[in-house]
Amino acid sequence: MKRVAIGGFGLTKFNKDDISIESLMLSSVKSLFDNNSNLIQKDVDVILTSTNDNSKYLANIVSELAGISPKISHSVESLCNSGANSVVSAFSYISSGLADVALVVGAEKFDNPGLILEWDISRGQYKHPVYWSSMFTKSHMRKYGTTMEDLAIVSAKNHKNALANPYAYFDKTYSVDEIMQSKNITEDVRVLDCSFLCNGSAAVLLASEEIIKKFTDCPVWITGIGQKTISAGFTKNDDLTSMKSTQYAANDAYAMSKKEPKDIDVAEVHDAFSICEIMEVEDLCFTQKGNGNQFVKNMYETQDKKINPRGGLIGSGHPLGATGIAQIVEISQQLQNKAEKRQVEGAKVGLVQNMSAAATSSTVLIFES
Amino acid sequence: MKRVAIGGFGLTKFNKDDISIESLMLSSVKSLFDNNSNLIQKDVDVILTSTNDNSKYLANIVSELAGISPKISHSVESLCNSGANSVVSAFSYISSGLADVALVVGAEKFDNPGLILEWDISRGQYKHPVYWSSMFTKSHMRKYGTTMEDLAIVSAKNHKNALANPYAYFDKTYSVDEIMQSKNITEDVRVLDCSFLCNGSAAVLLASEEIIKKFTDCPVWITGIGQKTISAGFTKNDDLTSMKSTQYAANDAYAMSKKEPKDIDVAEVHDAFSICEIMEVEDLCFTQKGNGNQFVKNMYETQDKKINPRGGLIGSGHPLGATGIAQIVEISQQLQNKAEKRQVEGAKVGLVQNMSAAATSSTVLIFES
Repeated sequence: MKRVAIGGFGLTKFNKDDISIESLMLSSVKSLFDNNSNLIQKDVDVILTSTNDNSKYLANIVSELAGISPKISHSVESLCNSGANSVVSAFSYISSGLADVALVVGAEKFDNPGLILEWDISRGQYKHPVYWSSMFTKSHMRKYGTTMEDLAIVSAKNHKNALANPYAYFDKTYSVDEIMQSKNITEDVRVLDCSFLCNGSAAVLLASEEIIKKFTDCPVWITGIGQKTISAGFTKNDDLTSMKSTQYAANDAYAMSKKEPKDIDVAEVHDAFSICEIMEVEDLCFTQKGNGNQFVKNMYETQDKKINPRGGLIGSGHPLGATGIAQIVEISQQLQNKAEKRQVEGAKVGLVQNMSAAATSSTVLIFES
Repeated sequence: MKRVAIGGFGLTKFNKDDISIESLMLSSVKSLFDNNSNLIQKDVDVILTSTNDNSKYLANIVSELAGISPKISHSVESLCNSGANSVVSAFSYISSGLADVALVVGAEKFDNPGLILEWDISRGQYKHPVYWSSMFTKSHMRKYGTTMEDLAIVSAKNHKNALANPYAYFDKTYSVDEIMQSKNITEDVRVLDCSFLCNGSAAVLLASEEIIKKFTDCPVWITGIGQKTISAGFTKNDDLTSMKSTQYAANDAYAMSKKEPKDIDVAEVHDAFSICEIMEVEDLCFTQKGNGNQFVKNMYETQDKKINPRGGLIGSGHPLGATGIAQIVEISQQLQNKAEKRQVEGAKVGLVQNMSAAATSSTVLIFES
């Protein structure tokens, strides 16, 4: 398998402006070119777009708008996990030898009507994601004693981390008390335990080992890839305290990279809701099962930025098709020692976990500088 | 680059029934399993869905409906060229070593609202595909003397070929005269020179060299891949008598497979309109530029089935996301000597050309048994 690395990235501020999906995508492509003075349009073999937007032919439209004539161009969609999927697809085009340089851009508009899984009608009026989050929350509380305060700590930590992220949608902190007092959406989930839909766009440049040195002196190698789909509908889930797809994906990613959980210096995990981060640090084996709440609490108290240094989805906002790519941009910045106020000192090995629809599918990626 | 082959396929009759996109996809997946008694769900590492439908998470939904828990699952979209793009994506997952077995299913509903390139507003009321076909037609007539009769011959040939295709949407022949007398859509394009939108679903199974023998004694190797995006909007086209993206893609596919145009025994080409097939046999170098009309006429008169033996898009119908995959199914059947009444005797090397939006992008694939 040929080695593939991240050689550049582009990002623009998450917001709720009135902007077209094409312009959103182009904004982070422009940022990527601005950040990479050695990159020219002719270098790019592959353009992939990651989005849940209903517009068609977006990879070709972005190609035209950016003055690029790639060989391979198409959109990739897998709900919230579209971003990591599109980066794995780009990895495979390069690793197989079909291409040398791929530009992957993810974007979403906050008001896209396609952001809920309409197919899962088995859950009737409860098909909004907040209901699976509520079921995860209740189950974790019952089995492991997780409290409302534990949830609020996740949100407080991630809003605080997001303050150092110039591209985050949110730019204020909340106390644990404020979060606990925020509006109840369900019995177990308050509004500040939720990630928010917003506009967002993020782009990454991938290249083969032969080409990457043209773009950077510090490539970020993708050394571990794990992906798993359990199902599409939440009703197939037989253990509401674990994300099985994340466990499978993590096992494969750790095995491929020959790394262990203790080797991970920094990680972006998919905190669509507060309970998700608590479950994910367990399912990624950063701590033992049932100890996720204590693990996060400890990070909050010691100001440890290991998990979600950019603020995660709760602090940064959640533009679906851009989220996985924005996570990868953050880990790339961390491993290149470019994360400024968010920098985890000496980070050499990073992890991204991106999932869809109550973790019915997950992607786990491991990166090394 | 690891070798990858087609090891099975599924297809269902193209129609205009009232059926959901999920059921359409599942119908050809079921056909694929019915055709491959050695295939079990656990074999499948990758599920890709190819469609322009607005429904989300379809690859995961098909996984659940088919009882499969793949590693990799996502949708691929690139308008009419989604099918070939999704098969190249599956090729790269296997060729890179990330997966061993991929199931790719394409489907489209005839009444999907997303089948026109809304973005190309520069063409105003002329953005329907029939208008670029009309401009291609007028240009080819002016430069090479192509006639209305030449166009009608394409349609007559492909409707005739489709009679031997049990899955085709059309099941009657038309005389050249009947086609020439059919309703004018533009000055140059009659209704029977157009392919028709319909429901359709097609699936293929790809596997690595180590695994393929489990599924078939006669694997169909993908030995040539060429892809090119010139632009998204038709207005960038500076030569209305050629499909430049097809020329680039063909060059790359021939080079990768070390084959020449004369080596191709059978081909499915993207005859969205009659003029397309005439241009494509030229741009794929089956004949010299300007001789496409004579080349097709000769096939019609000698009942040569080399080009579009299943009836192409004009004879079979054009369910966008399924089209490229249905083309690949036909070539696989031809190279396995399973094409029954459509069989091109002794076919060993086949080609598929699938394109989008006035050939602003194209994929060309070469297959060998």
